[in-house]
Amino acid sequence: MPGPVQSIERAAAILRLLAGSSGRLGVGEIAHSLGLARGTAHGILRTLERVGFVEQDKTTGKYQLGAALLHLGTSYLDVNELRSRAINWADALAARSGEAVRIGTLLDGKVLVVHHVFRPDDTLQALDVGSLLPLHATALGKALLAHDANAAACVRGVRLEAFTRRTVTDHRQLARSLSAVRERGWAAEVEELSIGEAAIAAPIRGHGGLVVGAIGVSGAVERICDAQRVPVAKLVGYVRDAARAVSRDLGGSRW
Amino acid sequence: MPGPVQSIERAAAILRLLAGSSGRLGVGEIAHSLGLARGTAHGILRTLERVGFVEQDKTTGKYQLGAALLHLGTSYLDVNELRSRAINWADALAARSGEAVRIGTLLDGKVLVVHHVFRPDDTLQALDVGSLLPLHATALGKALLAHDANAAACVRGVRLEAFTRRTVTDHRQLARSLSAVRERGWAAEVEELSIGEAAIAAPIRGHGGLVVGAIGVSGAVERICDAQRVPVAKLVGYVRDAARAVSRDLGGSRW
Repeated sequence: MPGPVQSIERAAAILRLLAGSSGRLGVGEIAHSLGLARGTAHGILRTLERVGFVEQDKTTGKYQLGAALLHLGTSYLDVNELRSRAINWADALAARSGEAVRIGTLLDGKVLVVHHVFRPDDTLQALDVGSLLPLHATALGKALLAHDANAAACVRGVRLEAFTRRTVTDHRQLARSLSAVRERGWAAEVEELSIGEAAIAAPIRGHGGLVVGAIGVSGAVERICDAQRVPVAKLVGYVRDAARAVSRDLGGSRW
Repeated sequence: MPGPVQSIERAAAILRLLAGSSGRLGVGEIAHSLGLARGTAHGILRTLERVGFVEQDKTTGKYQLGAALLHLGTSYLDVNELRSRAINWADALAARSGEAVRIGTLLDGKVLVVHHVFRPDDTLQALDVGSLLPLHATALGKALLAHDANAAACVRGVRLEAFTRRTVTDHRQLARSLSAVRERGWAAEVEELSIGEAAIAAPIRGHGGLVVGAIGVSGAVERICDAQRVPVAKLVGYVRDAARAVSRDLGGSRW
């Protein structure tokens, strides 16, 4: 078995650093952040530029992500089986619920949004596909955390960031809420990520019954929840039906 | 100056191959396509899998693009200056013209769509962001070909694929039409990519006046063109105004 190729791992680390930095970085900053010699970082950056994965600003000399990554990212979506099997069910869920629908999968201890159907009205909405959401503060994330051992391992011992005063930041409290998710088969989030917003999600199972993603609705808390801040049963039913339908199409469930 | 890092170039070639293959490939197919030893291809694939850039199907053992690329691709969009400067102008162009608006830039001898505003009506439309369009058969591509020496070099001596019977496949005829694009400052495409569809585009200039992209409208030929199949002057005006506005914001034009 060949071992990992160090220069490729370093190249990937540089790309992740640039993606996380929301802007441009100089070769010195990159080398320092990753503990690389400046010459090593420079050689990798020049190669990444040749293949279109980074671009160098001619004025400042700083590096940013390159256009070739956009095409690779959307090509990933084209072959993603979870997404392709779920698209029609996601459209139907948005139509039935009247809310925005998102499908997420685990990536780097976060929820990667692989599909997003806008709420069926005329309001301006930004596409979330490709965004990374926190596991502990979203319904999609809790559905993954409750059923996916890899997801659960990602948050173990990690400080849970507070996004609002309702975000669950205590590990024992989170564990209790995840037990409840496992028992009832769906997850909710009420103003834990953004004030005024709530969400419901259920796990999607692939071959062999393993959880491979989650599907859910999100929107204004007064539409998603009743007056007692409890998710509306009808919406929970729609979400569970959609998750079951996708799981069945993926071969992860028989009913 | 350090030289290019071979393993990174090979890794990039594998990712491009997977993106182009619209599906999954085995290690043998990948090694054969790129002229690599099987062990070399395997080592690179295992590393790409570790960093989330490829995924291996557990049943078939075949490889496909990985989820980490989706996040990198959308992160590219977040820092893309052409797109961020052009978003508001693209929205305005869609509202004024009543047509779908796309912004493209050159990538690998194709037009990479970096932004797409849906036609402002309720019809179902698929998001084109991340798609690669042919240079010679689109208005965006002709606007780039006419003004960007790198783009022009990409099609030189290359067989021009016919998508409809109106696609310009003769290099001399294409050269004449590009001269006309340069003279009048905008490009058109009338049923050259798809029957029933037409498009108008104009170049976007960045710092120093270099063409960095193109913006345009596309839609049903009977709306984009008059009865003589000539692009409607009012739409051409809207497109040129938008291209000029974006160029001014990018520092590529003073008026």
